[in-house]
Amino acid sequence: MTQNEPKIAVGVLGATGSVGCKLVEMLSKHPWFTITALAASEQSVGQCYGDVVTGEDLPKEILQRRIEACEPNLPCQLVFSALDAHVAGDIEEAFARKGYVVVSNAKNHRLRDDVPLVIPEVNSDHLQLVKQQPYDAGMIVTNPNCVVVGLTLALKPLVDAFGVQSVHVVTMQAISGAGYPGMSAIDITDNVIPYICGEEEKIENEPKKILGTLKGDTIFPADMVISAQSNRVPVSDGHLVCVSVKLKTTATEEHIIEAWNTFSGVPQQLQLPTAPHQPIRYLHGPSPQPRRHRNIGEGMTVCVGQLRPCAIFDVKFTLLSHNTIRGAAGSAILNAECGVRLDILTFDLQSNVKMSSLTPQVSS
Amino acid sequence: MTQNEPKIAVGVLGATGSVGCKLVEMLSKHPWFTITALAASEQSVGQCYGDVVTGEDLPKEILQRRIEACEPNLPCQLVFSALDAHVAGDIEEAFARKGYVVVSNAKNHRLRDDVPLVIPEVNSDHLQLVKQQPYDAGMIVTNPNCVVVGLTLALKPLVDAFGVQSVHVVTMQAISGAGYPGMSAIDITDNVIPYICGEEEKIENEPKKILGTLKGDTIFPADMVISAQSNRVPVSDGHLVCVSVKLKTTATEEHIIEAWNTFSGVPQQLQLPTAPHQPIRYLHGPSPQPRRHRNIGEGMTVCVGQLRPCAIFDVKFTLLSHNTIRGAAGSAILNAECGVRLDILTFDLQSNVKMSSLTPQVSS
Amino acid sequence: MTQNEPKIAVGVLGATGSVGCKLVEMLSKHPWFTITALAASEQSVGQCYGDVVTGEDLPKEILQRRIEACEPNLPCQLVFSALDAHVAGDIEEAFARKGYVVVSNAKNHRLRDDVPLVIPEVNSDHLQLVKQQPYDAGMIVTNPNCVVVGLTLALKPLVDAFGVQSVHVVTMQAISGAGYPGMSAIDITDNVIPYICGEEEKIENEPKKILGTLKGDTIFPADMVISAQSNRVPVSDGHLVCVSVKLKTTATEEHIIEAWNTFSGVPQQLQLPTAPHQPIRYLHGPSPQPRRHRNIGEGMTVCVGQLRPCAIFDVKFTLLSHNTIRGAAGSAILNAECGVRLDILTFDLQSNVKMSSLTPQVSS
Amino acid sequence: MTQNEPKIAVGVLGATGSVGCKLVEMLSKHPWFTITALAASEQSVGQCYGDVVTGEDLPKEILQRRIEACEPNLPCQLVFSALDAHVAGDIEEAFARKGYVVVSNAKNHRLRDDVPLVIPEVNSDHLQLVKQQPYDAGMIVTNPNCVVVGLTLALKPLVDAFGVQSVHVVTMQAISGAGYPGMSAIDITDNVIPYICGEEEKIENEPKKILGTLKGDTIFPADMVISAQSNRVPVSDGHLVCVSVKLKTTATEEHIIEAWNTFSGVPQQLQLPTAPHQPIRYLHGPSPQPRRHRNIGEGMTVCVGQLRPCAIFDVKFTLLSHNTIRGAAGSAILNAECGVRLDILTFDLQSNVKMSSLTPQVSS
Repeated sequence: MTQNEPKIAVGVLGATGSVGCKLVEMLSKHPWFTITALAASEQSVGQCYGDVVTGEDLPKEILQRRIEACEPNLPCQLVFSALDAHVAGDIEEAFARKGYVVVSNAKNHRLRDDVPLVIPEVNSDHLQLVKQQPYDAGMIVTNPNCVVVGLTLALKPLVDAFGVQSVHVVTMQAISGAGYPGMSAIDITDNVIPYICGEEEKIENEPKKILGTLKGDTIFPADMVISAQSNRVPVSDGHLVCVSVKLKTTATEEHIIEAWNTFSGVPQQLQLPTAPHQPIRYLHGPSPQPRRHRNIGEGMTVCVGQLRPCAIFDVKFTLLSHNTIRGAAGSAILNAECGVRLDILTFDLQSNVKMSSLTPQVSS
Repeated sequence: MTQNEPKIAVGVLGATGSVGCKLVEMLSKHPWFTITALAASEQSVGQCYGDVVTGEDLPKEILQRRIEACEPNLPCQLVFSALDAHVAGDIEEAFARKGYVVVSNAKNHRLRDDVPLVIPEVNSDHLQLVKQQPYDAGMIVTNPNCVVVGLTLALKPLVDAFGVQSVHVVTMQAISGAGYPGMSAIDITDNVIPYICGEEEKIENEPKKILGTLKGDTIFPADMVISAQSNRVPVSDGHLVCVSVKLKTTATEEHIIEAWNTFSGVPQQLQLPTAPHQPIRYLHGPSPQPRRHRNIGEGMTVCVGQLRPCAIFDVKFTLLSHNTIRGAAGSAILNAECGVRLDILTFDLQSNVKMSSLTPQVSS
Repeated sequence: MTQNEPKIAVGVLGATGSVGCKLVEMLSKHPWFTITALAASEQSVGQCYGDVVTGEDLPKEILQRRIEACEPNLPCQLVFSALDAHVAGDIEEAFARKGYVVVSNAKNHRLRDDVPLVIPEVNSDHLQLVKQQPYDAGMIVTNPNCVVVGLTLALKPLVDAFGVQSVHVVTMQAISGAGYPGMSAIDITDNVIPYICGEEEKIENEPKKILGTLKGDTIFPADMVISAQSNRVPVSDGHLVCVSVKLKTTATEEHIIEAWNTFSGVPQQLQLPTAPHQPIRYLHGPSPQPRRHRNIGEGMTVCVGQLRPCAIFDVKFTLLSHNTIRGAAGSAILNAECGVRLDILTFDLQSNVKMSSLTPQVSS
Repeated sequence: MTQNEPKIAVGVLGATGSVGCKLVEMLSKHPWFTITALAASEQSVGQCYGDVVTGEDLPKEILQRRIEACEPNLPCQLVFSALDAHVAGDIEEAFARKGYVVVSNAKNHRLRDDVPLVIPEVNSDHLQLVKQQPYDAGMIVTNPNCVVVGLTLALKPLVDAFGVQSVHVVTMQAISGAGYPGMSAIDITDNVIPYICGEEEKIENEPKKILGTLKGDTIFPADMVISAQSNRVPVSDGHLVCVSVKLKTTATEEHIIEAWNTFSGVPQQLQLPTAPHQPIRYLHGPSPQPRRHRNIGEGMTVCVGQLRPCAIFDVKFTLLSHNTIRGAAGSAILNAECGVRLDILTFDLQSNVKMSSLTPQVSS
């Protein structure tokens, strides 16, 4: 996209939730996208967005926009979905069937054979799976679970350089990952909760698809074993993860750190607006730490540290990613940017003016 | 000991630190021991204990007691040592040489061939190692690192019933484990620190000695591999640990839970004052949690939960122990109780009156 | 009551909430009362209490008791009400009309002319107001708001000795005061919320009734002005309150501290089971502090500290009370104990056996 | 200053502390100032700045700069002082005597008759006091205590429009206000500390000087009474303050809010780089909140909320200011900007090249 092209009209489904708010915040300053619809559940419909959420720094036109229902007649070409899993499946499909490009953070369609589960630095080629989807013009693209994004990004250079056989994961996840209102303060104050519903299954499965190989129409999942243990800790933002890895070939610590620090992918080559300069950054000292490092690269850089030998696996390390940015809203937006730039997610940009007329306009 | 026997006169070395305060608190209500000396570093010597520490619930005679120097002329028979590692080694030896029984929480002598490293439920037989120590009447007994106590207790029934081949450990440790003042609030607020100096080495080594076999004069360490990753989390008390275990034989989850819940050791048989009724307790639901469960069994019960299959190891689970009670002060006191009751730590109880005359009295 | 008297059968309304759980915990060990009914809202009715709440230390007979509906046919003589204010009004009246003694923590009836609002150390004589209530055998007794209990207790000795003209109050209230689930962890982590709905009104009004004078059938409210500002802070338990007071006569700091430390009331004279030895305790040093001092007197002692001159009022100080014990459950139980012991709340104790037959038995 | 003028060479005294780090961070991106010296206490001298502090986002030339001693031979024209009070007094004077412009955050000289204590929006005219200082070319300018900045800014429009008679202040201060390492995490976790050494005195005195009137060479302090109570709460950044105010004339809430929202001062008129667009902003709803609002105006806007009538004073409200930005580093920098722009703090800018030669260059 050049500066002179009209912006793409986008909507946000689930705009009042935790990830939805972050999407709105990031999209409100986006060079390519312009928010033309905010949709949420029945109880918010009709209200001004600014009356439902706290958003001191949002532009007035966003704060005063009326919230619409999550029905596929929104005046936009692309919808970002931050819907809860119990409704996301059906609503996202309804939008795709009506011709919308759906870029989703929900888990529902992630493991479908014809739905790309994408971290653009890792597997932007998987975006082509959308061609197999049974929708005319619409399509669904997903990003992974908040832990999986950072974990898979950190594993990718190791997979490429040394091969990865097995991965042991223990998470210390921030409370914002539970959405809003999410955790009761009584439960998490001065406490850790050693269980997050459904989380470990996602961490054990999603990376294999993302790191899998697309041959013809099919993704052959990566051949590795993952075991995960999830915990919620009293931290506002930033998921910290202890990882132990068995490699397929030998690697020195220097090589691993170099593989991380020099790693770069399609978003960096395309200089996408939301792409961090450095997707993975190795930190020395007692790092990474959630409060101190979660905002590096505006929340899009995954930080690693504490690399050392493991008596059982080969190496162990700690990684940190900002769960609502790289782990959710930022990843969804980066997916959209990547798909647009690679001409896989395409729109009739000239029709943008009509966008304001409540008629969704999607390129055929 | 019966009700009518005179109490054993004990001192606390490092009485003003975090573990020292907990020792004083627990000893001030102890049925067998009476505090006759409180010792700390130079800067506190001569002050009243109550002017240095906060201890609203301590008896007046404790609060008004003058702090003495950590020199082996304290009016007591047994000293509990909560000294910092950088001074504990020499001071404890000086006391042992002068005939004191030293029950230490410090790491310095833990791995010495002739020093018992004891969790009474696990290896009270190791106490006999003291006979090989080069002191006339004195001796040194140690308890393990705060994480190791809970971990090794939880492993013991698995070792006995199924054999344990390898153990992967990720800790989430409370701030009180760093002593006082310990962590800066700035560092740990809304944060996790993925590093604790020297901790992982202790966790990887101490359990092998504790679970080792005493043959003749020698302990043959347990044949298992342990890998540990340590983190500090913003929790006041209670170390939570994620454990993955490879067993030597197959075990159902029911069998493992039963092994834990029915586990009992020498302290329970001897009904020692500080022994919990149930050393290990399996909790169902999203448990164990530091704030909710750390005080079960008055802080002496290790809680386990979240037992489930592991894709890499055999099983994984989460365990919790109160780091300043079961993980430090309570374990030291239980060691002393066990040694006294088994007649390994012995004193001339009749000389108790003389205790008040600044002359240490130890049975020969 | 003597040891040999049968226990009074009590029920708890709203037994699954935050205050309800604390009531059940305290009542399960009570020497006079025995829990014979646990009632809560529709969604919990029929379930075992232990399946709805976490209560590792409750007796089995409590954990296995089925939850009943909040309808006035419970098998008990007295009900403690921890109901939410939006339902408490009607349900409590229904119980009173059916002959139950209702001891309530809810705000609904607190300011009624014929309902005693009682802190037994302050105004146990107000209990006689129940005689004016329009119920045959039943009656309603209330305890104040969680901040008001501690505040009014600390003011009482000043009122008696020096007179109090005006009181300026700023609170820092614990999250448990918001009930369960209460605050979202996202809202209160690393944060303070400068607003608690309805709280300031209660703090400004309730003390005047409690400190008021009962003449004949009427309470003449105390003549003082109170202004309150309420804040929620990230602390689990314990409300801390900054107070500035204008006295009617001059007082030295020594006199004020003496007035507090020597203060004692009817519950102490009657040696009621839940009465703290010392209702108010002055602490020197940087005190009182929620985590360190909230459990003094098993949570029933109000701690004060930081007494110093005020440039605008006469003196300022800080006070702390445990909000779910002295501020709620403990106060309700103390009210019940006081009323029973003073023969104002009376029951047919001999009929206790029939209690098990689902028929409420109340003395006429 | 225009774009083409050379930058002013500045040093930071106490550069490794909490406020010092924030100064370095803000100055490293400053359009007018360039850091040419970082000084700290003996133990850090000679080390690279990046080895002593954590500063992932600082430029390399800062991270690699050697720390120098706090002696008045630093290669710069102006020094920002973030020194501890126990050394700041002498060191700052030594620098002033040697001809440096000293812009200090320390308390030592704040109340000296010839030292301006400045919040540029409030009393930039007081800067002229430097002319009375006994130094040849050097001078000392100070900014107030971290609570006082926000408080006085919020009071200023009320003083101007309605007059202020008395002010009652209760603070809830963030842990970063105690410096680094500052508070022990053990003390503040799940806790509030109702005491901050020396704080209340500053809050009660400094505003009177700042709001005072400069007549000739003398400041006549404002005629108002202030009473303060200080508390430390478990919040990382952002001091929240409950204020009650007695006005000299009547004011509606609308008038007060308007007075705040429309308030503007010299820094806004001069469009100083660090001046917020809006110095004071009134927030509706349950606001202000530290985590949510501390960064408004890049930490330089003071947020107010919760305005309501007070039964004792006239009105009460809550205010928030970012303690290390508006309350310290940002205020110091704004003071320097204001003094430079008003030609009160003057330098020989052409000699800037010589700056690198370890010779301080100050305009005569």
